[in-house]
Amino acid sequence: MSLSKNQTKLINSLRQKKYRQEYGLFVAEGIKVVNELLNSNLEIEQLFVTEPNLVSIKNSSKVVLITASELKKVSAFKSPNKVLGIFKIPKEKEVKEKGIILALDTINDPGNLGTIIRLCDWFGIQELVCSKDTVDCYNQKVIQSTMGSITRVHIVYTDLVDFLKNATIPVFTADMNGQNVYNADLPKEAILVMGNEANGISEAVTSAIQQKLTIPRFGDVQETESLNVATATAILLSEFKRRT
Amino acid sequence: MSLSKNQTKLINSLRQKKYRQEYGLFVAEGIKVVNELLNSNLEIEQLFVTEPNLVSIKNSSKVVLITASELKKVSAFKSPNKVLGIFKIPKEKEVKEKGIILALDTINDPGNLGTIIRLCDWFGIQELVCSKDTVDCYNQKVIQSTMGSITRVHIVYTDLVDFLKNATIPVFTADMNGQNVYNADLPKEAILVMGNEANGISEAVTSAIQQKLTIPRFGDVQETESLNVATATAILLSEFKRRT
Repeated sequence: MSLSKNQTKLINSLRQKKYRQEYGLFVAEGIKVVNELLNSNLEIEQLFVTEPNLVSIKNSSKVVLITASELKKVSAFKSPNKVLGIFKIPKEKEVKEKGIILALDTINDPGNLGTIIRLCDWFGIQELVCSKDTVDCYNQKVIQSTMGSITRVHIVYTDLVDFLKNATIPVFTADMNGQNVYNADLPKEAILVMGNEANGISEAVTSAIQQKLTIPRFGDVQETESLNVATATAILLSEFKRRT
Repeated sequence: MSLSKNQTKLINSLRQKKYRQEYGLFVAEGIKVVNELLNSNLEIEQLFVTEPNLVSIKNSSKVVLITASELKKVSAFKSPNKVLGIFKIPKEKEVKEKGIILALDTINDPGNLGTIIRLCDWFGIQELVCSKDTVDCYNQKVIQSTMGSITRVHIVYTDLVDFLKNATIPVFTADMNGQNVYNADLPKEAILVMGNEANGISEAVTSAIQQKLTIPRFGDVQETESLNVATATAILLSEFKRRT
C-alpha cells in the first residue's frame, strides 16, 4: 500500500478550514497525539503509519502503511513522527449550563486556543463556547498543542452575543476596571468570557456581560499592558475553581 | 544615509546568541516595542527607521534613515514595522533575595519565556533567575513577545543549583505530588522554581528544593498531562501574590 494522489490531496486540503468543514474531517500527527485521539470517542477516518503496530487501533482496515518520505510530503512538520491520522469532526451538542463555562470572543492565535483547551481540561470545564470568528479548534496547530485535551472538552462555535443574552447563569469577563478577583464573590455556576488578544471583548459582547473581574497588578509601573489571554484565563479559572 | 554592509552583517549576526554575547547587543523591531525600550534604562546602539520622527529618541546621531526594502532585508518579520533598534544588553547585577523570586530550569521555548517575563512584570516579581541553558531572553522572539516588560524585570543567567543551595529564603516548585497550593501556607519571601516544558525540574535542581506545590486538577480524568509551564507559573505567582 502507499499514499494515493487523492489521499495526498485530501490531507493537504484539510489544512484549510473551509475543507475541514466541507468534509467534516481534521488531521493530527505524531504517535502520542494520535494515540490519545484513538483512545477517545472520536471516529477515525484513515490512519497512515510508517511502521506497523505503532498505535492501537481496533479497525485495522483503516490503516495504510506508507513510507517515511511519503509521510514527509503531507506532514505539517519538518521531522514527521511516524503517524498521521484523519479523524471525523464530532457533532456539536447543546451547551449544558452547568458549572463554569468558558466563552471566547475572537481568539485568533492557535497556540492560545490550544493552551486554553488544556486549561479547560485541567479545571474540569466541560463547555467551551467560541464566537464564530475564533480560530478553528480543528486547525492542526491547535490539535497538536492540546495533546488530547480536545477530546475531553465540548467545543461549540456559535453567535456569542445570542448565547450570552439567553444565558440563565451570570456572565463575567476580565477587565482592567472590574472587581478585584481575589475578593470577589464568585458563583459555582457562571460563564467567563475572554476577549481577543489585541482588542479584548467586542462592544456587542460587552453589552451581554454582567460582571467585570480584575486580576490586580502588583508591579508599581503605570503601563497598561495586559496579561496574555491564556495566562489571564489560567488565573481566573483557578480563582473560580479553588472556591468550589 | 542607508544601510551599510557592515550594519546588515551585524544585524544578521545578532540572531545568534553567540554574537549577541560577543557584542553585548540585541535587536528589537516595531514602533511599539522599540519605543518602550527607548523609554527605559536600556542604552541604544543604533536605530534604523524608514521615516523620520517615528520614535522619540534623545540622541539623534544614533538614528539612520533607511528604505522599507532595506528594512525588509534585515527584519525578522514578513511585514516589518518601520523601526529596528540595536540595544546594549544590560549588565547583570547581584540578585536581591527580597519578595518572590522566580527561577527557571531549562525553559526552551522563547514564547514561554516571553510570557513568563510579562507575568513577572505584572506580579511585581523583580528577579528572574534562569539556568544557563534556559533560552536567551535577548532572543528576538522573546524581546518581541515581552512588549517592554523585559525592561522592568532583572534577568540573570547563572548556575541554578549553586544559586538555590546558597539561598537564604525557602525554595518551592510545582509538582504533581506536592501540597495543594490553595491551602498551602505561602511565605512573602520565597523562590519559585519552574521546570523544563517536557522534563520538568532536573535532578540536581530537585535536590535544592524544599517544598512542592500542586495545582489541583478538577477534571475527572486520570491523564497526567500537565499544564503548560507559562499557565502553571501564572497560577502559582497569583497564589503567592494574592496573599501578600
